[in-house]
Formats: sequence, C-alpha cells, structure tokens
Amino acid sequence: MRYLYHLPLSPFARKVRVVLAEKRLPFELRLEKVWERRPEYLELNPACTVPTFVDENGLVVPDSGVICEYLEEAYPEAPLLGRTLAERVEVRRLVAWFDGKFAQEVTRNLLGEKFMKRLLGRGEPDANAIRSGYTALRQHLEYAGWLAENRKWLAGDFLSLADFAAAGHLSALDFAGDVDWSVSPQIREWYARIKSRPSFRGVLADRVPGVMPPAHYADLDF
Amino acid sequence: MRYLYHLPLSPFARKVRVVLAEKRLPFELRLEKVWERRPEYLELNPACTVPTFVDENGLVVPDSGVICEYLEEAYPEAPLLGRTLAERVEVRRLVAWFDGKFAQEVTRNLLGEKFMKRLLGRGEPDANAIRSGYTALRQHLEYAGWLAENRKWLAGDFLSLADFAAAGHLSALDFAGDVDWSVSPQIREWYARIKSRPSFRGVLADRVPGVMPPAHYADLDF
Repeated sequence: MRYLYHLPLSPFARKVRVVLAEKRLPFELRLEKVWERRPEYLELNPACTVPTFVDENGLVVPDSGVICEYLEEAYPEAPLLGRTLAERVEVRRLVAWFDGKFAQEVTRNLLGEKFMKRLLGRGEPDANAIRSGYTALRQHLEYAGWLAENRKWLAGDFLSLADFAAAGHLSALDFAGDVDWSVSPQIREWYARIKSRPSFRGVLADRVPGVMPPAHYADLDF
Repeated sequence: MRYLYHLPLSPFARKVRVVLAEKRLPFELRLEKVWERRPEYLELNPACTVPTFVDENGLVVPDSGVICEYLEEAYPEAPLLGRTLAERVEVRRLVAWFDGKFAQEVTRNLLGEKFMKRLLGRGEPDANAIRSGYTALRQHLEYAGWLAENRKWLAGDFLSLADFAAAGHLSALDFAGDVDWSVSPQIREWYARIKSRPSFRGVLADRVPGVMPPAHYADLDF
C-alpha cells in the first residue's frame, strides 16, 4: 500500500493528493500532527513537514516538490510537467511561484496566522500580516486570472502540476472562506474546471474540526 | 552566449554558477539589483528574484530550482541528481532542506537581517532574528556534519546538487564571517574538498563593496 502523511489544510499535501489521483495511484491518507514531532515521523522526514509519501516498495519521499518530481519519474503515465524543455520550465516556474512566492505572501499570512499559529501555540494572529495577506491574494488572483485568460490552463494548453499547485493553495484558502472569486471571473472559471475533476473529490470532501467551509466550497458550479 | 543574472551574496545564484561550471557551460554573469525592480528584468522574471538564466537559444529560466532541473535535462553530461530513483529522492530532499529549511532558519536570519534589509531599505537588523539564526546554524552544521561523516558526499557516495546547494549557503555565510567551522570537523573537511574544485573558483573570487571576507574565505586549506 502507498501512504501519504498529510494535514487537511496543507496546500502542499492537497497538490500531491490530486497528482496521485490523476496518476490513478491508490493511496491511504494518514493524518500527521506535525506539531507533536513524533519520533517515528522524524525518522521518515527530519524536516517534520507534511506531506511525506511512502511508496509501496517502502521508499520514503518527503517534501511535496520532491514527491511530485519522483512521481513523474516513477509513474510517467498522465504526465504533468509538459513535454518540451520550454514547457517544463514554465510548469516548474509556476509551481515555484505558487509554492514559494504565493505561499510566503498569501498562505502563510492567512492560513498561517489564523490556524497554524493557534495549532502550534505560537501566539495571537498578527493583524498586519493578515491585511498584507489579503492584499497579496488580490494581486495573485489578478496574475493567475491573466494566465487563465490567455491560456487554456495556467502553464499553457495542457493541464499540469502548475494548476494543481495553484489549486492546492486556493482550495485551502477557499475552505477558510478567504477567496473573493469576484476579483477574477477567469480564475473562477478555471477553478470550476479544476473542481469538477474526479481527482479533486477527496480534497472537496475534507472537513476540519472547528472550521466551517463556505456553502460554495464543494459546489462544482459555485 | 549564456547569461546568469545574479547577486554575489545570493546562495541560490552561487549554486547555479557552480553547476554551470561543473557542466562546463560557459556563461556571463550579470549583476541584477533586484530591489530596483527594472521593468526589463520583471519581463524576464516577474518574481524579480535572482538568479535568472538565459540560455544561448534565448530560453529564459527563472528560479534556481527550476534552472537546475532544466540544466540537468538539457545538459545531462556531469549528472548531478543521481541515477536511481532513491538517489534522486535523497539529492532533491537535501536541496529542499538547504534551499528551504536552512534558507529560512539561517540565511534569512543572518544575511537577510545584516545585508539585505539595509539594501532593501527595510529597517534595522532584528537582534532576535540574528540570535535565532546563529542557533539554527549550529544545529544545521551538526546535521550536515553527521551526513559528511557517514557518506562520502552529502547525499551519498557521489557528488551532487545537494553539495552545491549546501555550499551556496555556507560560502555566502562564510564570506560574511558567520560560520564557526570548529562546530564540525567533518563539514569543514567536506567544505575544503568543495572549495578546491575548479568550479568553485568564481564564487571564491567574489567581492562585495563594503564587506570584507575573513582571511580564510578563499584559502583552500582554510
């Protein structure tokens, strides 16, 4: 059996869950409360982050970026990085954009301040960080909307890891009711297409104790 | 001609410079003061980070992680990611460790506070951040030393991108006089081997206005 250690609100784990489903690789989810720093988990992943993937041959693969490169090499069926060198640069550039820049400027300032700080016992949410997270989210929605307007999918005319990296963050933020989809009709239309994929069902079924997602969260037509 | 937009103290640009030299790909360095946000540079790399690589066919590749994956695919000679799937997981895990965790916990708190804040006009260095950077650096040196003690190179018995990711950060910190090499004789010995490689000469020749590296910085025997 394959395992994925995750947290429901982790955008990085969400990306990997969708990639595994797109590649039709069955796996079992295991909730890992990383703040407990379980010694057994530290052995698997000394950085103590989620997700960590364990393949059926026992190979342990930590870090969502490393997992996605591994899955692409081990299971090339349903390719998600593009074919040409230029396509692969654009896919990876956008993955780095969402998992690096977007994560720092938006996700950490919103989900990080509102949920993770409480979970990790690191004090009260910082109102300035939250404000700056909302401002950055609006700019990022405009940039992603521009991509969606000019291309079929975010990285070009093919579905790719870039779409799932973006959807990992946006779906986690949407769960918390943080996304104003009216900012960009293009990105709203793109997200409706992502949501209607069977690979996304698991993510839409997530529930987190103490957080009530907005009514449209799992609604495929918004 | 190939170009690499860089800043001398950027650990990410240093990693790419060494990789290009290991692969014997001639290139020209271009200093990019990212804080000026030149419109022409934003066209090349909307994230406005260094490094950005421009290959001789004109393909623009931003982000050091994306550049290294691109170089490995476009120029497989002198392979730096390992051969087997398990080797490639371990190399990429350590690259993510140094360019993610180490960068956040050490580099940002030391070089970020002491140099980048001044350059970017973002206020005074934060003494708590600097203290926490030194504590984390000691722990990271011990972890890297443990790797160097049990393996020939950081990711195994072959030289890899993991070594150059680590050396990018440690050489930039060493330039600023921040590394206490006595913490780990193993990592000191590993770094002496890295420094003596011809691919590292460019990095050791760097000079930055207003920063004087310690006497041992470019000394191959320390």
